[in-house]
Amino acid sequence: MIKVLIIMGSDSDLPIMQGAISALDKLGIAYEVNISSAHRVPEKTAKLAKEAEEKDFSVIIAGAGMAAHLPGVLAAYTTLPVIGVPIKGGALNGVDALYAIVQMPKGIPVATVAINGAYNAGVLAGQMIGLMDKNVAKEVKKMRASMAEEVEGKDKKLQQIGVEKYIENR
Amino acid sequence: MIKVLIIMGSDSDLPIMQGAISALDKLGIAYEVNISSAHRVPEKTAKLAKEAEEKDFSVIIAGAGMAAHLPGVLAAYTTLPVIGVPIKGGALNGVDALYAIVQMPKGIPVATVAINGAYNAGVLAGQMIGLMDKNVAKEVKKMRASMAEEVEGKDKKLQQIGVEKYIENR
Amino acid sequence: MIKVLIIMGSDSDLPIMQGAISALDKLGIAYEVNISSAHRVPEKTAKLAKEAEEKDFSVIIAGAGMAAHLPGVLAAYTTLPVIGVPIKGGALNGVDALYAIVQMPKGIPVATVAINGAYNAGVLAGQMIGLMDKNVAKEVKKMRASMAEEVEGKDKKLQQIGVEKYIENR
Amino acid sequence: MIKVLIIMGSDSDLPIMQGAISALDKLGIAYEVNISSAHRVPEKTAKLAKEAEEKDFSVIIAGAGMAAHLPGVLAAYTTLPVIGVPIKGGALNGVDALYAIVQMPKGIPVATVAINGAYNAGVLAGQMIGLMDKNVAKEVKKMRASMAEEVEGKDKKLQQIGVEKYIENR
Amino acid sequence: MIKVLIIMGSDSDLPIMQGAISALDKLGIAYEVNISSAHRVPEKTAKLAKEAEEKDFSVIIAGAGMAAHLPGVLAAYTTLPVIGVPIKGGALNGVDALYAIVQMPKGIPVATVAINGAYNAGVLAGQMIGLMDKNVAKEVKKMRASMAEEVEGKDKKLQQIGVEKYIENR
Amino acid sequence: MIKVLIIMGSDSDLPIMQGAISALDKLGIAYEVNISSAHRVPEKTAKLAKEAEEKDFSVIIAGAGMAAHLPGVLAAYTTLPVIGVPIKGGALNGVDALYAIVQMPKGIPVATVAINGAYNAGVLAGQMIGLMDKNVAKEVKKMRASMAEEVEGKDKKLQQIGVEKYIENR
Amino acid sequence: MIKVLIIMGSDSDLPIMQGAISALDKLGIAYEVNISSAHRVPEKTAKLAKEAEEKDFSVIIAGAGMAAHLPGVLAAYTTLPVIGVPIKGGALNGVDALYAIVQMPKGIPVATVAINGAYNAGVLAGQMIGLMDKNVAKEVKKMRASMAEEVEGKDKKLQQIGVEKYIENR
Amino acid sequence: MIKVLIIMGSDSDLPIMQGAISALDKLGIAYEVNISSAHRVPEKTAKLAKEAEEKDFSVIIAGAGMAAHLPGVLAAYTTLPVIGVPIKGGALNGVDALYAIVQMPKGIPVATVAINGAYNAGVLAGQMIGLMDKNVAKEVKKMRASMAEEVEGKDKKLQQIGVEKYIENR
Repeated sequence: MIKVLIIMGSDSDLPIMQGAISALDKLGIAYEVNISSAHRVPEKTAKLAKEAEEKDFSVIIAGAGMAAHLPGVLAAYTTLPVIGVPIKGGALNGVDALYAIVQMPKGIPVATVAINGAYNAGVLAGQMIGLMDKNVAKEVKKMRASMAEEVEGKDKKLQQIGVEKYIENR
Repeated sequence: MIKVLIIMGSDSDLPIMQGAISALDKLGIAYEVNISSAHRVPEKTAKLAKEAEEKDFSVIIAGAGMAAHLPGVLAAYTTLPVIGVPIKGGALNGVDALYAIVQMPKGIPVATVAINGAYNAGVLAGQMIGLMDKNVAKEVKKMRASMAEEVEGKDKKLQQIGVEKYIENR
Repeated sequence: MIKVLIIMGSDSDLPIMQGAISALDKLGIAYEVNISSAHRVPEKTAKLAKEAEEKDFSVIIAGAGMAAHLPGVLAAYTTLPVIGVPIKGGALNGVDALYAIVQMPKGIPVATVAINGAYNAGVLAGQMIGLMDKNVAKEVKKMRASMAEEVEGKDKKLQQIGVEKYIENR
Repeated sequence: MIKVLIIMGSDSDLPIMQGAISALDKLGIAYEVNISSAHRVPEKTAKLAKEAEEKDFSVIIAGAGMAAHLPGVLAAYTTLPVIGVPIKGGALNGVDALYAIVQMPKGIPVATVAINGAYNAGVLAGQMIGLMDKNVAKEVKKMRASMAEEVEGKDKKLQQIGVEKYIENR
Repeated sequence: MIKVLIIMGSDSDLPIMQGAISALDKLGIAYEVNISSAHRVPEKTAKLAKEAEEKDFSVIIAGAGMAAHLPGVLAAYTTLPVIGVPIKGGALNGVDALYAIVQMPKGIPVATVAINGAYNAGVLAGQMIGLMDKNVAKEVKKMRASMAEEVEGKDKKLQQIGVEKYIENR
Repeated sequence: MIKVLIIMGSDSDLPIMQGAISALDKLGIAYEVNISSAHRVPEKTAKLAKEAEEKDFSVIIAGAGMAAHLPGVLAAYTTLPVIGVPIKGGALNGVDALYAIVQMPKGIPVATVAINGAYNAGVLAGQMIGLMDKNVAKEVKKMRASMAEEVEGKDKKLQQIGVEKYIENR
Repeated sequence: MIKVLIIMGSDSDLPIMQGAISALDKLGIAYEVNISSAHRVPEKTAKLAKEAEEKDFSVIIAGAGMAAHLPGVLAAYTTLPVIGVPIKGGALNGVDALYAIVQMPKGIPVATVAINGAYNAGVLAGQMIGLMDKNVAKEVKKMRASMAEEVEGKDKKLQQIGVEKYIENR
Repeated sequence: MIKVLIIMGSDSDLPIMQGAISALDKLGIAYEVNISSAHRVPEKTAKLAKEAEEKDFSVIIAGAGMAAHLPGVLAAYTTLPVIGVPIKGGALNGVDALYAIVQMPKGIPVATVAINGAYNAGVLAGQMIGLMDKNVAKEVKKMRASMAEEVEGKDKKLQQIGVEKYIENR
């Protein structure tokens, strides 16, 4: 069975990381979730990454804030694709996390999404998994189509009721 | 046959984007390369993305600088994974390109790598393709091992000849 | 009849984009408003831009946040002037949107206004339209004069009642 | 006759501002060029803006670096559309100029283009003038088409000779 | 009589600019306060600066937010020292105002204080006026001494009651 | 007896600087706390630093916001290690304080921790003191172990009750 | 006799700080120049500031780079006006110096000029001294007039010879 | 014997990290130097940190650029003090490295110095070691005194030969 491993550095990241869970749920992809800090439990973190492939995980999604080393540290211990979610927090609002995740050195990429973009991390995992699982690929396409419909619906409603009523009803 | 589609917004991006080509070459992954601007030839760009899947591409790598819309625009027209390479250039040194690529809205992710990180885009494509092609996965592991050896070799040399000679010989 | 086309990427941008509507209303300029995301409904977005001229629109005003591709994508499909409104939102407070809108590549400009500056987008559209419609040009001058009067009035009041009372009465 | 007024704060800005001249030349639009600092000759600067309309200018293009007040100061004295070009220079690389030009207060917009984006300022002026002059509108469309052809040509060449030769020949 | 001229771009800046008033009051320095926007009433603003010296003002304090041209524009019309107060506001939190005030071109300085640092603008005006008025110089010294006493008093209290009680009592 | 000297520029920094106190308390390290501004009471501040060594202090922890000179000024008057805590505050959110503390010139280092990272300043002081006091070194190790346990405990709980319940119970 | 005290943190700042010297020379104002680091020779630095007034200095100009504490430290020891010049250098290009100089806490202002804006520091000193010395005030006005003439002359030349020749002749 | 462990992520960092070596040499402190990347050889890196204490290292100095995880990763595996040196490089000039090193989460500090501030890392290590080794403490004081002499000497020379000659002779 295809599974995604979701890891975050602190349980305070859980509400944001639920975005990834929600996207994976929509796409019908299984996952496991761990709290494991790159700095406070480095050996546990290394172990999670090293064993991920043999435990049949296909993709790792990692979220962390501030000096966000977690995605990069996981990427150092596995050759599975690692998706990094910079989490907004602290005085720098997540710019620190973005830089610490995206600016990885040559040879060890982390697939970085937007600050707090956990939902997109789930979608991206689905797109990767879709390469080997046609059902998942189909689900990603459905998700995309339903997003388009939603936007079309909103525009239609706007044309019908006009700007002022639209804002009132939001 | 598994193939990667590499697109860049301008031929001035080619020297940087060669990094992706070099990584794919090392991993034995086929690719095609196009110059296609999101703003100057929008319909050609849309077509490239829309037809990518049926032309048997698995992953798209897109590089662009400044208001770097190319990766996001491609992502809008396909559900294949799109890897974005922000390219340094102009007065803002690539921070504009980074933000324009990584900060994608909900539902349409772009897997972003470091500014000028085209080599890592190639590696990441290899990791994604490795999910469905065990040979590629093996090549990624070899690449990783050889990087580790290289670092070990440098450290060994440093221990042998000392800091001063090492710097002279670099 | 001269008309302005207002497009925004998401209905959450509507309260900000009302600024443009309010300026156009003051200037007596007609407009239509659409919700159309560059990423979720790219073909609809392209169509809106491509048909704008033949539908007798003169200017397009587009607002978007984060990786704000909408104004640039519209500009790629039309030669009408496109005014871009970077919308504040997300962890980067609109700096991402500003860069993604203003840093357009050679040949495809977007006339960018301040972050959340939708009102000024409406005024700028009026100034452009004033080039061909003397009535609109006159309305822009009136608007300017009434702004000046407002500032003069506030200063006069300040001279009359003094700083402390002025602050109390605000 | 339709004319554009180009103003820059210092003669050191002239090489960058030539971009605007070159775009206007391509579009067949007449222009006049002045050096006039908002701070060193404020009254001359005010006069240029105040008289622009009666001297039959349609659009003003203004370029300045650092605390780039020139476009905003001109906009304060005219209701013609003013296009601002932030010029890279000094320790902040033009970010100061960008912010000082784009972040105009409510009521007095400056149509801002990219840092050093003088060419696009000329194109944008052409798009505005195209609203009242169909020949100019046609020229803008031609310019757009020729840019598209140029990109297509480069891509074709790349397909013919391959990446390595292409880079050699650049 | 020695007087300071305080000008702000908008009445919304008044609560911040009260800091300057409060410092001048403590130092016994007379002042007048005007609301006058560099962009909405440019001629009034120019007049205020041009007539300042003959109206016996010695120093001008100007506060503005966003593309904060006011202090620089005033400085262009007078050779009296102009103190600029960047005001926090809008999406960029006053960084735009700071850059637009401090990065003045060669020859026309604005003495810039901290973002929202209106109180210090008043103190700085006092230090300048102290050069010609020994009473004011004495008042600045007293103000400095009383600030020192205040800090000493707080430290003494902290030593007496300890950290926890100190925090409770704050 | 080994002691740490904690100094902050203003009593408003006390709630943040309590983090350092709390870490030192956990590690059983004695400390004294002073309020002493580098700018308002410069001589007192210099005296605190100059006398720190003879008063048997081993490490100085200094916290300050905005143009945060305090840690650097203390470091100029002593050769004891000085730990600097940039404090978030004002329009720049502590980036100003971070730069003013970390970017010290050659020869006079300040050991800088995260913005508002006072707790870590205490831990770092403990690590330094642990070099000469084995009991403190042991306490630092215990603190580290208990942090690891805490993370492990949270992960265990998450595995037991699942994401949704975990979030509810937080 | 009226004198200005110029202090810089390092002799590497001297070429930039010559700008202040050159402005003071033009205005006929006497000055003394010292190298004195706030961190390496803090007591000498304090002494320079404390004795400045009794040595008949009227204004202090201080330039420093990186964590630029020098102007603020001087301001802490005197009530004369202190003008701070942030000097570009190091990885942050002078943004660190700008923030460390301009963001002074309540009560101790530093009159900050542009990054590397030493010439303007000299002009500002002249404007301050002009408050008590009418000859200096006259010199400032002359300097201003000659700057205006210079700009006018450049514009006249541009009108005569045209853009292309002007650029060739620069 | 007291020793410092110097680790850097890449041999390209060696020229910068020589600053630390040079400071330690001046202070007579022994050291070992390793190249060991947190991402390319994570297990070697972890081992270096875990064994540092039993190999009698007292302090670790770690330098890295871009997403600079090395200092934080080392700090995760040891309770010795870790000093981090952000190294300038790549498109972001070391701001990424600074944030990735200084913004460590609660409990795992890294004592951060300036971007490229390797010399100061050596001095700071000396200050820490000085807590347990009075000879080293004495050497740090000597170093400080000789720096002060150097500044005094430069100022004396400046007074003797004047600004112009001083600049010529530099």
